[in-house]
Parts: sequence; structure tokens; C-alpha cells
Amino acid sequence: MTDYTRFLSPTGRQLTESAIRRMGTVVARTGDMVSFAPGYPDASLFPWQELRDISTGLLDGHDADTLQYGPTRGYRPLLEAALRVLGERAVHATLEQLIVTSGSQQGIDLIARVLVSPGDVVLVELPTFTGAIAAFKNMQAELRGIRLEQDGISLEHLDEVWRHATESGRAVKLLYLVPNFQNPTGSLLSLAKRAQVLAWAERRDILIVEDDPYGLLYFDDVATEAETRPIAADDRTGRVLYLSTVSKMLAPGFRVGWMKAPESLIERFDTAKQSTDLTSGILDQHIVHEALRLGVADRLAPRLRALYRNKRDIMAGAIGARLGSRLTWPTPKGGFFLWATLPEGCTDTELLERAIQHGVIFVVGSAFHVNGSGHDTIRLSFSAPSPERIEEGARRLAEALG
Amino acid sequence: MTDYTRFLSPTGRQLTESAIRRMGTVVARTGDMVSFAPGYPDASLFPWQELRDISTGLLDGHDADTLQYGPTRGYRPLLEAALRVLGERAVHATLEQLIVTSGSQQGIDLIARVLVSPGDVVLVELPTFTGAIAAFKNMQAELRGIRLEQDGISLEHLDEVWRHATESGRAVKLLYLVPNFQNPTGSLLSLAKRAQVLAWAERRDILIVEDDPYGLLYFDDVATEAETRPIAADDRTGRVLYLSTVSKMLAPGFRVGWMKAPESLIERFDTAKQSTDLTSGILDQHIVHEALRLGVADRLAPRLRALYRNKRDIMAGAIGARLGSRLTWPTPKGGFFLWATLPEGCTDTELLERAIQHGVIFVVGSAFHVNGSGHDTIRLSFSAPSPERIEEGARRLAEALG
Repeated sequence: MTDYTRFLSPTGRQLTESAIRRMGTVVARTGDMVSFAPGYPDASLFPWQELRDISTGLLDGHDADTLQYGPTRGYRPLLEAALRVLGERAVHATLEQLIVTSGSQQGIDLIARVLVSPGDVVLVELPTFTGAIAAFKNMQAELRGIRLEQDGISLEHLDEVWRHATESGRAVKLLYLVPNFQNPTGSLLSLAKRAQVLAWAERRDILIVEDDPYGLLYFDDVATEAETRPIAADDRTGRVLYLSTVSKMLAPGFRVGWMKAPESLIERFDTAKQSTDLTSGILDQHIVHEALRLGVADRLAPRLRALYRNKRDIMAGAIGARLGSRLTWPTPKGGFFLWATLPEGCTDTELLERAIQHGVIFVVGSAFHVNGSGHDTIRLSFSAPSPERIEEGARRLAEALG
Repeated sequence: MTDYTRFLSPTGRQLTESAIRRMGTVVARTGDMVSFAPGYPDASLFPWQELRDISTGLLDGHDADTLQYGPTRGYRPLLEAALRVLGERAVHATLEQLIVTSGSQQGIDLIARVLVSPGDVVLVELPTFTGAIAAFKNMQAELRGIRLEQDGISLEHLDEVWRHATESGRAVKLLYLVPNFQNPTGSLLSLAKRAQVLAWAERRDILIVEDDPYGLLYFDDVATEAETRPIAADDRTGRVLYLSTVSKMLAPGFRVGWMKAPESLIERFDTAKQSTDLTSGILDQHIVHEALRLGVADRLAPRLRALYRNKRDIMAGAIGARLGSRLTWPTPKGGFFLWATLPEGCTDTELLERAIQHGVIFVVGSAFHVNGSGHDTIRLSFSAPSPERIEEGARRLAEALG
């Protein structure tokens, strides 16, 4: 058998697998596993009927543009609809500052390719989204983690890490943040800190990558819409690259997201995307455009907030009843995740092994930490499983913890 | 205004725009332009009714898998259907050797990222597909062109270029080929040469990237199906990475293709794809799977061959009648393109400027050449425009040539 190792590029040799994707494989292979692992949206609220009518109508229309190659930048009416969606969140943009991406993940990837040189330092939250870790690492970035406090990243630590990296001669270009209901911790960056982070980025000449898939999924017992105001809304100098997606608000299978960024960078992302996939799915873009135009996403949003808030309560209740003395977690203010700290002497990887034996999986906390720490944490997703499965999973997790 | 230049990576600085995509922008901006530029399929044969029924049925089914995140490797039934499609072309594979890609373009991009180190030499045909040029260049490959003869690349030149690169200390890992109805020349690599190229790749320890979007679009007055036998069909040692797509046989808007490659490389491509777009469009994969299962693509193929053969005849007739004494071209044996050589003293870029004034566009031949040559050639796409528009475009082109 041929050994292909000699053919691999530096990227090919050190590719980083997403721990979340790996969990997806585990659950696909086993029958009765309760999965608290991937952050899948609840399929019961996919707007089947509306999407059916939209796609039937589009394909009845026989408009070549629905199935033909399209502009790399995106389907123009979708871009215009995205501008309106952004505007509702106080993020104002022009068409020239916008590009459609194949999900937010492609946005992160385009940013990594166009902006990250091998050895560059990228600042991230500690912990942070594994898909971002993988995309930046695959461009040979060096990731440095910033401590999270209750109201988001520590500004002191941020500047300390920046200083340290800069003094050791490294280029620090990007700070990657998920300010709203962060993956994995579910935490919310306070409004005061948003302003401080933006001012800091200007002072230190850093670009902020603001990834915001969960912004509309606030839980109104503990958070308000006003608290989710994107950093990009107050960006007057083009510091923020803002990523958004319909994956959590309509359905993830469409792979449709968008990025707002300074015009000159959007041109580069456009060129990079040309050789990446030419264009995002065209029928998908048309369907999503129609769904936005007809208000499907707007009508769904309150129902999604209520659904996930209820699931949070069910998970917190079920885990609390069985494990409340041993696991601790901050109340998620929105999003999909409960971020739990394990009892002393218990590690995430050992617990996962036992959990799989007991028929429940989650993502190990260490996978979200770029500094090798986090073995005392786990991420439990309450978004996809039904209430009954959440109860059952909590029971199994309690067994696994022993 | 902030200057973002300092933030750019080496890739970001030297991004290569696809000449074909640029032409797409020109045509989008102007009203009555006849476009012989992008290789768009003819939308009149998109199987609207079948696709409508398929997508309606899928969305009526309320099966969460249709809209949920899915495996990066691809929707399993689609992978199985792709194995059958490959098998019909004598390319035998296992599921472990296959990955779904967001169009062939993503296949090339994944190959470039996983296999190409900065400064590596990639061998390509002279001329070759601009999307491949861009993907390899964006990974800082150095591209070296191999002369095309009537029956495909020159084996002598291939080995000469390889020797020269190797002797100067460069790593030569990949040979990128479009053996069937090549983009842009429409040429067909002879069966004898296919065997020779494969043997050569084994002798020189090179991997072949075989890109085959047009294989089923042979014109039966001058070519046979047997002549389109993929190199991958005779690959016994895992030398060939074989790319295929439904873009030309169903519709390009789906962004669904697949790659067959050795299992250990597919694992790397899978990991690279995770951080690129997580997964290709899920609804698209389901629709394409149904279209393959129901034989939609099989039934279309003969009609597509007849349609494009007829359009080739119309273009060759129209151009021949008006410009036959000044333009020359080999008869396309399949595919979408007529590759014309200009009269002495006329260059592709000058002619394009005049052509735009006269309301017709094409792609300059030099865009397909990695060595700065080709200014005496142009690519004329006959696939998308109607017969009337082909006639009109030929008239305008004759005016532009003056």
C-alpha cells in the first residue's frame, strides 16, 4: 500500500479534527445513545410546510437563476434581505460590505485563509468554539486563550496576552469572539465589556471576528434582546467582521450564512471563495431568501426562544435533581448549551468513556480549550433531544458519574 | 479609512481571481450582452418537474435528516449512489474512498490544502481550467504547464518538465488533468496516452488529479463513450484522485460533487472539510440522491449530448460562415467549449475589449495559460446561449474582429 505521508502539506499533516464532529460519528454508529454532544437545532421546529411551499413555488417558476451557477458574492435579493436582518439588529451595512457564506463555518475559514499567516497569533475565548479552533489551526495560527469571567472575557487578561505575544515578536491580528450565548459556555458578554473590547481593538489595532449564531435565542427570564446588541452595531471604524447564519433560526442543512466586513476585505473573501466552492448553494439561497421575505424566520424566533428555554429548564432540572451536588453550571442565558464543571478528581475524558458505556455522550470541555486545560468541564447540549431523552440522558449521566 | 493590507496573509495578498468568474460579473452588469464566457449548462434542460416533485416529497416527509446537520463525508445513500455512478464508468471504489464535495471546485481546493506546500510544483495542461489554477495558486503552488497535442498532453514534455523541476530541487506531487473534453480546449486525451500517463505517474511517484465534469457529454459523431474511460478506472495502486460532479448533468446550483481517493487521504480531506463548511448542503444532497435513484440523470444524459452537439454545430457553423478564414479551431468532441486561435497580430485582450463594445464576451485564452502565453487564443462557450443568441454573438464577434 502506498504511503501518502510524503504528499501531505503542512496543513495536511497537522489537520485538527473537530471534537464535535467526532462525537457526531459516535452517535451515528450506535443505536440508543442519548446525545448531548452536537449543537443540533431541534428539528421539530423546522418550518416544513413553509419550506415545502417555497421550494415547490421556486421550482414551478422555472427561473434558470434558481439552479444555475450564481455570483460568488451571493444571490442579490438574499444579500438585500440580509441587510434588512442585520439592520434589525442595529448592524448597518452596504451591499459592498456583505458576502454570502456556506454557513458561518465558511466565514471563519475565509477569514483564516485571507488574514492568518503561519505563526500569527489569534486570540480566542477560553473556552471557545471548536470549529474556529480547527479553522485557525489549519492555517497554522497559534491560538492564545483569554480567560472568561461571568460577564465575558477578562479585559485585563486580554491585554496581558496581547502584550506578551507582541513583545515576543508575534503578529496579533484577530480576536475571535462569540459574544451571545457562547459556544460552549452559554455566557453573554456584557454591554459594558462590548464597548471596552471594541475600544481595545482600536487601540491595539486588532480586528474582531464576531460570530453570532445564537444572538436571537435569548431566554427572557434572564436576558433581554438589548443585551445581545452586536459589537458590530457600534463599530464606526471597520474593526469588526460580523458572522451570521440561518442554521439555528431556520435549518442548518441549507449552509447559508453571511459576513459583514470592510469592503476591501469582502473583495478578498470573494476571491478566496471563488476557488473554494465558486458559490454557495443556489436553490438554498433562493429558499432562504423567500423564507426571510415571507417572515418565516421572524415568526419562528419567539417559538424557538420558548422551546430552548424550556429545554434548558428540563435539562437543568433533570441534572440538578440527580447530580446537583456534584455538577455545577451557570444558568444559560440563551443558546443551546449547559456548561458544567465536574467534581474534583473526575476528568472529562474518563467520564466520557464511562458515559458512552451507559449510553449518553457529550463533548469534553478540554476540546474547547486551546491551552490544554478544561479537563474539569463538559458541554451538554439541550437543543436537539426531546424532553424525555433529556431526562433519560441525565439518568445515564448520573449512573456514569457513579 | 483603515488600511487592511497589513492584516493580509500571504494567501490574502496574492489571491488569484478566476477569469471566468470575472466575466460572469461583466455579463451580470450589462443588458444585451451575448455571453460566450462562462461554461454554464443550458437551463432549458434542467429537470424542473422531477426536481420539484422530489423536493416537495422530501419536505413533505418531515424527515429531520433532510434539513439537519449531516456527516462531513456526505449523506450515506448519496455516497452509495455515487459508487454506482462511478461503477458504471468502470471506476470501482469503496465507501471509505469517497467524499461528497461542494462541487468539484471544493474537491480541487481540498486537494490543494491537504497536499500542496508553498513552493511545491503542480503540473497542469497548457491551457487548463482557471478554477484549478486559482485553487493551487492560493496555496502558493508553482504551476508548470505541459504542452497539449491533438490527443492530449505531450508525454515527452511532461517528463521534461518533471525532470527540470526535480533537478532544481522542487517537490512535484500532483498532475492535474481534465482528460475528457477539457476546459478550455474541448480536447480528449487518447486511451493510449491515458495508460502512459498513469504508468508515468507510478514511475515518477506522482498523484494524478483527474477532474471529469464533462465525461458523459461526448458527441457521437466524433467520439465514443469508450474513449472517455477515466484514468481512475485502470488505477490499481491508488495514484488517481478522481473528481466528479452533477453540475453539468443535473444542475450546478446544487453544489454537489464527489471525490474518489485513497482511504487515508479521504480521511484528511474529511477533516479539512470539517473546518471549511462542516458539510455540503443537506437538502441538495437528498435531492441529488433521489434524482440519481430515480434515473433522472440517466434519462437526461442522451438529451444533453444531443443538445450540446447541436449547439456546437450551430456555433461552428455561425463562426465558420463569418470568420472561418480568420479563426481556426479543432472540432470539440464533447463538452461546452470551442477553443479558437486568433489571426496573426490579434491578441485576446484587445479583441475582448472590442467585443465588449460590440455586445459579446468570451474568456481570453491567456487566462488558462500558467506561463503567460496563449494571447492568440480565446474560449467560446456554446453551452448556455440559445441558437439565436449564438448566431447573434457570432455576428458581433465578426464585427469586433473587424
